[in-house]
Amino acid sequence: MSNSPPYDLATLASLLKAELVGDPTAKIYALATLQSAGTGDLSFYHNPRYFKDLLNTKASALILSQEMAESYPGNKLISDNPYISYARASHLFMLEPPLEKGVAKSAKIHSSAKLGANVSIGENVLIAANVIIADDVSIASNTIIEAGSEIGEASRIDANVHIAHATKIGKRAHIYVGVVIGSDGFGFAQEGGEYLKIAQLGRVVIGDDVEIGANTCIDRGALDDTVIGNGVKIDNQVQIAHNVVVGKDTVICGCSAIAGSVKIGKNCVIAGAVGIINHVEITDNVTVTAMSLVNQSIREAGSYSSGTGLSSTAEWKKNIVRFRQLDKLAKRLQKTKNGIE
Amino acid sequence: MSNSPPYDLATLASLLKAELVGDPTAKIYALATLQSAGTGDLSFYHNPRYFKDLLNTKASALILSQEMAESYPGNKLISDNPYISYARASHLFMLEPPLEKGVAKSAKIHSSAKLGANVSIGENVLIAANVIIADDVSIASNTIIEAGSEIGEASRIDANVHIAHATKIGKRAHIYVGVVIGSDGFGFAQEGGEYLKIAQLGRVVIGDDVEIGANTCIDRGALDDTVIGNGVKIDNQVQIAHNVVVGKDTVICGCSAIAGSVKIGKNCVIAGAVGIINHVEITDNVTVTAMSLVNQSIREAGSYSSGTGLSSTAEWKKNIVRFRQLDKLAKRLQKTKNGIE
Amino acid sequence: MSNSPPYDLATLASLLKAELVGDPTAKIYALATLQSAGTGDLSFYHNPRYFKDLLNTKASALILSQEMAESYPGNKLISDNPYISYARASHLFMLEPPLEKGVAKSAKIHSSAKLGANVSIGENVLIAANVIIADDVSIASNTIIEAGSEIGEASRIDANVHIAHATKIGKRAHIYVGVVIGSDGFGFAQEGGEYLKIAQLGRVVIGDDVEIGANTCIDRGALDDTVIGNGVKIDNQVQIAHNVVVGKDTVICGCSAIAGSVKIGKNCVIAGAVGIINHVEITDNVTVTAMSLVNQSIREAGSYSSGTGLSSTAEWKKNIVRFRQLDKLAKRLQKTKNGIE
Repeated sequence: MSNSPPYDLATLASLLKAELVGDPTAKIYALATLQSAGTGDLSFYHNPRYFKDLLNTKASALILSQEMAESYPGNKLISDNPYISYARASHLFMLEPPLEKGVAKSAKIHSSAKLGANVSIGENVLIAANVIIADDVSIASNTIIEAGSEIGEASRIDANVHIAHATKIGKRAHIYVGVVIGSDGFGFAQEGGEYLKIAQLGRVVIGDDVEIGANTCIDRGALDDTVIGNGVKIDNQVQIAHNVVVGKDTVICGCSAIAGSVKIGKNCVIAGAVGIINHVEITDNVTVTAMSLVNQSIREAGSYSSGTGLSSTAEWKKNIVRFRQLDKLAKRLQKTKNGIE
Repeated sequence: MSNSPPYDLATLASLLKAELVGDPTAKIYALATLQSAGTGDLSFYHNPRYFKDLLNTKASALILSQEMAESYPGNKLISDNPYISYARASHLFMLEPPLEKGVAKSAKIHSSAKLGANVSIGENVLIAANVIIADDVSIASNTIIEAGSEIGEASRIDANVHIAHATKIGKRAHIYVGVVIGSDGFGFAQEGGEYLKIAQLGRVVIGDDVEIGANTCIDRGALDDTVIGNGVKIDNQVQIAHNVVVGKDTVICGCSAIAGSVKIGKNCVIAGAVGIINHVEITDNVTVTAMSLVNQSIREAGSYSSGTGLSSTAEWKKNIVRFRQLDKLAKRLQKTKNGIE
Repeated sequence: MSNSPPYDLATLASLLKAELVGDPTAKIYALATLQSAGTGDLSFYHNPRYFKDLLNTKASALILSQEMAESYPGNKLISDNPYISYARASHLFMLEPPLEKGVAKSAKIHSSAKLGANVSIGENVLIAANVIIADDVSIASNTIIEAGSEIGEASRIDANVHIAHATKIGKRAHIYVGVVIGSDGFGFAQEGGEYLKIAQLGRVVIGDDVEIGANTCIDRGALDDTVIGNGVKIDNQVQIAHNVVVGKDTVICGCSAIAGSVKIGKNCVIAGAVGIINHVEITDNVTVTAMSLVNQSIREAGSYSSGTGLSSTAEWKKNIVRFRQLDKLAKRLQKTKNGIE
């Protein structure tokens, strides 16, 4: 049973542990959304917002729940959780070209570095002294790994990544293109009007099963380490400053900026473009909605927000004038209430 | 008539299709602002904010409108649209060193890749299997183009760019340094407390005449493609998530973050550092002002904003306390009006 | 007296010009925070928030002020400014592997480029025509320096940096990984619905003692230059647009976005994720707090802010409805006051 398309539907049912209703010999070439699917495509239904698309899809088969099975007359794979089944199926239809195993001739690997079995090292990769690369790791072209860093089993480091000295990355990590790990924290001591740089002596320590999106930066600690817990998922262009600690299975969406010494708990969701000021602590199970500023610690689980919501610019201009008067307005209202005016 | 400085003024008038009033033999070596221009410089006047500079400029010649011609006694090039004429002139004074034609020896190009005529391929460029590079394309040093991608005629890809597999880029694109195109969208299915990665099977498809600024990221689609329309201009450090669709001639300024499946119409202007949450739809001819959060779809053309405007931090601290009480204050006001208090 | 650990305490006292009280022969191997320090570690006390840690630290010696000396019975280095002394000490314990001197074989340096004495040029570095590299400069692997650029004495350019043509960088600069200097400003002239690119003819000019953090972008000027003053410190992922001028010793924290032609004075602090719209002028000695939008010029020194502060999402949703009604609410209050209602 080869794991590459096309699959017949019976094979997919078996791979996805789903119940097949329909033609077991139907050939499936690709995954597609309900709306864009055609003959030879597998699709899935899990979100009521797409119910109309379910009725009109031209897919050759669908993944859906037992509950919805009657709404769809065609070939189907019945799953307790169609979205999870879709996630599993997605890996069966991956067309990304596989990395070549072995070490490219143009790569430069220091004699003291240790490479595990079955590694893939791309063109122009630079691996410095005392680096340890575990088994089944892939490192794509132009990536630089500085002295003393360690990359755990089956991790994948994409192209143009820079991993500074003494960084530790766990197993099954995926570090995307252009990521910068272990650059200096932004630390200065002010003397007179000038700034004296503080050498950044800590490391970055990253757990297992972590994803770090393209062009994200994670700075090394000043003295203690910057720590990213197991299972943390970080999107593109996130900035994580020195000595930040991120708890297990927390998600940080694109363009968020986390200042120095912030501690974020487990199972949090930091939405996109959020800012968190330095030394803030956020407990477990906190959601911060998009583009909020966290300017104080969050001690209770729950969802938090800031900002004003969107208006037409014309109305907004009137309202921001009033925002600047808000304390005065509130005091005037207080006086009115008290019968002073 | 060589297109490199110095020009005499008659030549410039001809190249810019402007009416010359003054000395046709005046030698012009460079373009400059009214304020910094000296002998040998051409300048331009289009914005009343610089009227004082117009009176004091030491430029050897000016581009200006017929209407303003009388205000300036020196050499002039009269244009219907001085700013457009300046834009055209700017290309005549470009001093950027031209790229060498041909393929650098250190570039590695897969035998199945197709290179058009008159291409320029820089040092250490990596071009994978089945890539198609059209005529007159330039690809600067260290850039990586993965398998099956296509780059259209006369496009320019700067250094350190990463273009993932199966990306399609149109004609006359300019992709700046450090851009990451086609990295995985940030998609996971949650199972228990953990996240299961969804393989990202879509592509990035980019139209003609598109600019993409330095260190910007555009993720590939989950199933359908991420699509950037013709004529779209994107500034530096913008994040465009999976399955975003951007309409023709829309402009997106620096550091904006566009979440998954957002649809932006034609001729929009998304100012700097704007956030747009996922699945939002924005119609044509919409402007979103700087640093606004778009947390709902925009169905009517016009300008939209969020945020509070700037105050002194001392006043701001008082007002944000009142913002948190705003609903209560409004209800109290309602009661006052109704004579309850 | 070798400047590498371990040091005995007498040596450290001398190097830091601090007064030693305690065992001059105590061996110090590393710097650590009060909380994580153990035997062989030097720590420091300067912030009352850590007073409890001072009482419990296991450090072998502390840097602290004369005033606090009595609170701590162990070995101590007494300093007028313990934080400055810590900053100085940090450089004595730096474990970063030194760069190799000389020019890597894989570097390509144009015959017209000038290299000073004692330079370090890493793997795959590309240095174009007429570049001038002063003495004691280091340029790490994969960095590209385009034609006509100049790098001043003892500056350090990290890996994967891109410095476009005609850039000027002063002495003792530190440019971190992935920085893009001198990419085109985002300038277009609109003609009909389309955008005509304006060639960007200015340069980027950077003073002495400047730091520029990872993946930050600084665009070249349209006609005049983009100018970064002496002593300016810029964090990661900052975007600085064309023709921005930043004054001496100003600090710009991570992810801030500075639009075109902004002028920032001396000794300012722009906190993280701040947005500044184009053509704004900010005077000297201004602080802008995190994630504020500067949408008007700031003429007086002081601290400025925008935004609403954080609430629970449930309360926030009620309050943002009221924000949209704020002008109406204020007018109604006005009427109440005037006895109209």
